[in-house]
Amino acid sequence: MLKEILSLVPDSDVVYLGDCARLPYGTKSPRTIIRYSLQCGQFLASKNIDMLVVACNTASSHALPALEKALNIPVIGVVDSGSRAAIDAGGKNIGVIGTPSTIRSGAYESALRALSPEVQVHSRACPLFVPLVEEGWCDDAITEQVAHRYLDDLLSKGIDTLLLGCTHYPMLKQVLQRVAGEGVRIVDSAVSTARVVAGIHGASSSAGRDRSVVYYLSDVSERFIELGEIFLGQKMEYVYEVDLCV
Amino acid sequence: MLKEILSLVPDSDVVYLGDCARLPYGTKSPRTIIRYSLQCGQFLASKNIDMLVVACNTASSHALPALEKALNIPVIGVVDSGSRAAIDAGGKNIGVIGTPSTIRSGAYESALRALSPEVQVHSRACPLFVPLVEEGWCDDAITEQVAHRYLDDLLSKGIDTLLLGCTHYPMLKQVLQRVAGEGVRIVDSAVSTARVVAGIHGASSSAGRDRSVVYYLSDVSERFIELGEIFLGQKMEYVYEVDLCV
Repeated sequence: MLKEILSLVPDSDVVYLGDCARLPYGTKSPRTIIRYSLQCGQFLASKNIDMLVVACNTASSHALPALEKALNIPVIGVVDSGSRAAIDAGGKNIGVIGTPSTIRSGAYESALRALSPEVQVHSRACPLFVPLVEEGWCDDAITEQVAHRYLDDLLSKGIDTLLLGCTHYPMLKQVLQRVAGEGVRIVDSAVSTARVVAGIHGASSSAGRDRSVVYYLSDVSERFIELGEIFLGQKMEYVYEVDLCV
Repeated sequence: MLKEILSLVPDSDVVYLGDCARLPYGTKSPRTIIRYSLQCGQFLASKNIDMLVVACNTASSHALPALEKALNIPVIGVVDSGSRAAIDAGGKNIGVIGTPSTIRSGAYESALRALSPEVQVHSRACPLFVPLVEEGWCDDAITEQVAHRYLDDLLSKGIDTLLLGCTHYPMLKQVLQRVAGEGVRIVDSAVSTARVVAGIHGASSSAGRDRSVVYYLSDVSERFIELGEIFLGQKMEYVYEVDLCV
């Protein structure tokens, strides 16, 4: 997601916050997800951002109204743009996969039906996909078996589109495409969300100067930085540890 | 662990705190593990406990000195008693498995060598075991393949004992025994830690009255209570949510 924003919105400064001390969010209760998301939003607001991108499906599914109420700036989630991408790709029978909290929220189902009332939606929580990505077993025989166990039921429903409702899942795209077969389109929200950001941000951008990208993490570990640089495809230069729990 | 303490120390009141909002600890940095462990210890101290059992290997590996310094009561970790159990079982060539943070700390290696300087120790982090237990895939073909990938290297070193350095791992005992083979003894720290607690607590126990067991969780979810009752083998009656982040 950050990678796509850095590429599509090349002239704006970026303040990134990763709450890696308390991840994963996808197995927490809605109350805790909202509380932690507000702490994150308030930290970023203190850095004078003029737009907040909630680049986490679990937080987007539960905390957008609370964040919009608390902050006086545009708040962009990933659920609407991911759903839009799936419909634009021609999805009529869409499988949605995500964390337990995202799936339980029903946020994708509502957003998809709002865009296209006749669409069919089948959802499945895939709790092991995030740990498998974090273990680095992205294109792996064990991951493929896990994917079969999670997806076979969805595939038996004849889905034409698989919507990746978690920002970790694009790392599993090769395995997921093999398991789903070439006939199923795989869609994620990264590019479509970055386009929304670019659309809003166009007016206020100040082209022609160097942009700054600063990373705040609630737990700085070598492991997270390694993983972050794999996601990002580039070096994370300015990294600071921050205590969100204040 | 709690199950063993409830059984071996039947007459003492128990205050349990599960920091489920922020788990897993096993992938966090030592700084964050110590900070969160101190918040947990201070919360429990406010409930007038007279002994603290740190029933988490990651916290035991990193935060015991900080907890002992901050609290004026006995603090019992699981690393020493787990190591004692492995040596008492006759272990000469011991494989230790745990979370990335526990293994990186080297705590088991130090404790085992302190008890028996000539012991051989081989360690391996197994990051997916906790998510597999939480997914409920305890006695499962996929879990068995994951176990092979983590353990085959340890087994090729000819270990005679496999020390489970994480409180989740006893749930995987059947799979681990199949993968390790009948010749390898599997040892965990639950019973031996409960014995240490019983030994210290014997003097101050007040037999003959009903004991109270109260559960505080930093994130109350159905899922955690279900899982807790599987671990515990009994109902969790008094459950309260608490914000440790104050």
